[in-house]
Amino acid sequence: MDVKPVFNTVGTLVVLLGLLMLIPMSISVYSHQGDVWSFFLAAAVAVGLGVLIKRISHTSKEPGTKESFAIVALGWMIAAAIGALPFVFYGACPTYSDAFFEAMSGLTTTGATVIENIEVQPNGIMFWRSLLHWLGGMGIIVLFIAVLPGASVGGSRLFKAEVPGPLPERIVPRIKETAKTLWLIYVGFTAIEIVLLYLGGMSLLDSVNHAFATMATGGFSTKAASVGAWKNSGIHWIITVFMFLAGCNFTLYFRALTGRNLRVFFHDAEFKFYVSIILAAISLITVNLYASGSFQGLAETFRHSAFQVVSIITTTGFATCDFDMWPSFSRAVLMTLMFIGGCAGSTAGAIKVGRILVLVKHGYKEAFQFIYPRAVTLPKINGSPVSRSMLNTITAFFFVYVATFISGSLIMTGLGLDLVSACSAVAATLGNVGPGFKVVGPAFTYQPIPAFGKWVLSACMLLGRLELFTVLVLFIPDFWRRG
Amino acid sequence: MDVKPVFNTVGTLVVLLGLLMLIPMSISVYSHQGDVWSFFLAAAVAVGLGVLIKRISHTSKEPGTKESFAIVALGWMIAAAIGALPFVFYGACPTYSDAFFEAMSGLTTTGATVIENIEVQPNGIMFWRSLLHWLGGMGIIVLFIAVLPGASVGGSRLFKAEVPGPLPERIVPRIKETAKTLWLIYVGFTAIEIVLLYLGGMSLLDSVNHAFATMATGGFSTKAASVGAWKNSGIHWIITVFMFLAGCNFTLYFRALTGRNLRVFFHDAEFKFYVSIILAAISLITVNLYASGSFQGLAETFRHSAFQVVSIITTTGFATCDFDMWPSFSRAVLMTLMFIGGCAGSTAGAIKVGRILVLVKHGYKEAFQFIYPRAVTLPKINGSPVSRSMLNTITAFFFVYVATFISGSLIMTGLGLDLVSACSAVAATLGNVGPGFKVVGPAFTYQPIPAFGKWVLSACMLLGRLELFTVLVLFIPDFWRRG
Repeated sequence: MDVKPVFNTVGTLVVLLGLLMLIPMSISVYSHQGDVWSFFLAAAVAVGLGVLIKRISHTSKEPGTKESFAIVALGWMIAAAIGALPFVFYGACPTYSDAFFEAMSGLTTTGATVIENIEVQPNGIMFWRSLLHWLGGMGIIVLFIAVLPGASVGGSRLFKAEVPGPLPERIVPRIKETAKTLWLIYVGFTAIEIVLLYLGGMSLLDSVNHAFATMATGGFSTKAASVGAWKNSGIHWIITVFMFLAGCNFTLYFRALTGRNLRVFFHDAEFKFYVSIILAAISLITVNLYASGSFQGLAETFRHSAFQVVSIITTTGFATCDFDMWPSFSRAVLMTLMFIGGCAGSTAGAIKVGRILVLVKHGYKEAFQFIYPRAVTLPKINGSPVSRSMLNTITAFFFVYVATFISGSLIMTGLGLDLVSACSAVAATLGNVGPGFKVVGPAFTYQPIPAFGKWVLSACMLLGRLELFTVLVLFIPDFWRRG
Repeated sequence: MDVKPVFNTVGTLVVLLGLLMLIPMSISVYSHQGDVWSFFLAAAVAVGLGVLIKRISHTSKEPGTKESFAIVALGWMIAAAIGALPFVFYGACPTYSDAFFEAMSGLTTTGATVIENIEVQPNGIMFWRSLLHWLGGMGIIVLFIAVLPGASVGGSRLFKAEVPGPLPERIVPRIKETAKTLWLIYVGFTAIEIVLLYLGGMSLLDSVNHAFATMATGGFSTKAASVGAWKNSGIHWIITVFMFLAGCNFTLYFRALTGRNLRVFFHDAEFKFYVSIILAAISLITVNLYASGSFQGLAETFRHSAFQVVSIITTTGFATCDFDMWPSFSRAVLMTLMFIGGCAGSTAGAIKVGRILVLVKHGYKEAFQFIYPRAVTLPKINGSPVSRSMLNTITAFFFVYVATFISGSLIMTGLGLDLVSACSAVAATLGNVGPGFKVVGPAFTYQPIPAFGKWVLSACMLLGRLELFTVLVLFIPDFWRRG
């Protein structure tokens, strides 16, 4: 490990983040709500610190494999540390632990909040939360590759370390163009959603905030009741559709655009599985809720179940109602969706539909091998076999994900949380979902969690967002050896 | 699939089971508690049915691979169906669903009971429950191979399909001798435990019942308060030690005996990991319970935590106290142990320590490959690399285990159980543990579960005991094709 190129890149990131704070600051200037100086101060600290880091670590050396992982893992931690400053300076969060949690929750598109009086916060603070989502959704470092000249070398490694994957190999070579196109698609969808929400009756700022949070599959809302604060069912459906879109593999949009053909979707096994899971979950929950009389009429039941299912599987975490009051079957379905997540190459978190699909086929193949021991076959996706190394990475990922979930839950119960709150808090942060059940249910915030627990959950968010290994390699002793 | 050799073998099994009923019947004759006729009738039905099956399916053909799986899967289902008869005939269980659940729970060494007034049941019925445990523990079909002449051909497949675990290949060839030796060790340990429990103050029948249930890692007790009904701490420790022994790989005893050397234990990675997990869990729970003041003094706290930890990790399910009243951290540790289980080649259920060890090493190797992409290595156990096919089987097993757990839990919540009860009921039956939490906690029985739920949980027990694939292959369409 050569630390200089790492800190050199991280320094640039910190400067960039400081400059980005000027956007919420300009909103603050316009809104006159007393948070201008918080942003100014935070931006000054960020730019100053970033320049300082770059000075000290000045080098012309390019980052290698190890350095790329260090850049991404460290970059995200420092981004959250810096992103927390406006929350502390303004006083939106009482402690730095809270502010770090909020910023990490924003960047990792988790959407779990510790701010209990969200509706009295100034517009600038609200916008900063959403902006963190939006930057983290497609990946701040991917943005970086797309925007900055000269950042393309080593970019493919950074890209792979940051974009939720498993991704097809073929998109990696032309990394800079791909990064640019992905960001353009992302910007395009966001713009369309802003317009639709505005037409649907939201204020401009609420439209922007919610569109950012939707496309990033984040889930921060400007209301304590989340999207449920709007009674307009049109708004519910717009957000449902855009959450669904954000949970799809963005390389499919890329291919649909370049090939001018929507068929790519229907030939994609992951997309079909994603749609099937969503339809199955909506049907099951609709029947369960309708039978238990949770809502008036089938249409309303269907709308709420569709919203919540899509919100949880895409790991957005918006809510139109307190789904923790639902019967335990519906809650168990949602809990399961928290682990599944959206498609690879989307802004969604958790295990991802593509990996689940490979695992299901792997399980079936193994059962098959029991009766035909000589049939050595690898599971096929979209007609071609998954490579052995990809299969190994996926099976290891699944185990480490479950092991992290269990370890995190044990720690949270050790802090005094009951089983359901502890497990759902870890599932919801590790999967970058946001709300869990009981203590951390959609009607509450993460404020009551002890400070240590907030740091643990922040670590879960980072582990989930960077898909475990990018962070875990830091704990391998060999990682820190030079060369 | 050729059904004749399957039913021919299953027929023999049914006859054998009928003859085994004569043991509890002789206890009934001696005890005069009115259950003699139940056993006589059940035995007559079993022997009659078995002979009939053998007549119809008479063949000299040997079972092949598929047929071996069918024999084990079907054999166990029919054994539970027949084993349930005395419970119904005597009226210990109000419905056949209950009796089937009880028999399956016995055979699979789960130890979950539906009999609420256990202490008023006659000695014969109590003994039958324990005998089912004891037969199921080392494997009725392995017993079969050991005892019956001419059952050695195809035996290695039957053996592999029934004995828990990933087992080393080398023990498979000399299958008949191995089966015999394993059973001898099993009988030996059981005999020693009977003597010790009797000297510790238990009645002879209680000693036999508890020794059977311990060595099989079953968990049926003759008391509603389980082992907690005895206040003698000596009895607690005897059972703790024997549960621990039953959770070890029996091939290690085999090797220690043949090589006259106890070092095999300390050179075995799985054994060391098993001991480490147990010590870690006992320490954590002792500290947690001591801090919360659940028991008086450190010695008592230590004894109860050691008993419960060993009981749950070995998937026995005995209890000396109502561990569902423990703080949530201790309960979460126990819940985790329910998934880990004992060693491969033991009578314990669940995922097994050996598989977890391979998965941990696999996860580490994959993280390592992230930084050194060219280092293609397989995880090593006891110095030699795990074969690629073994690794694939283990990763697939882990995924299918988790998927089965989630599916089962969803069904149980659909029947109206709360999340913790549903998940722990499935974890405790799939892992062949016995008691779970809340509704199915150690202070209660599985009686309140709806009949459909009892069938689902019975299926979980069978899936867990036969390690998933032996049962799941029945659902592959190709399985039923001839040849």
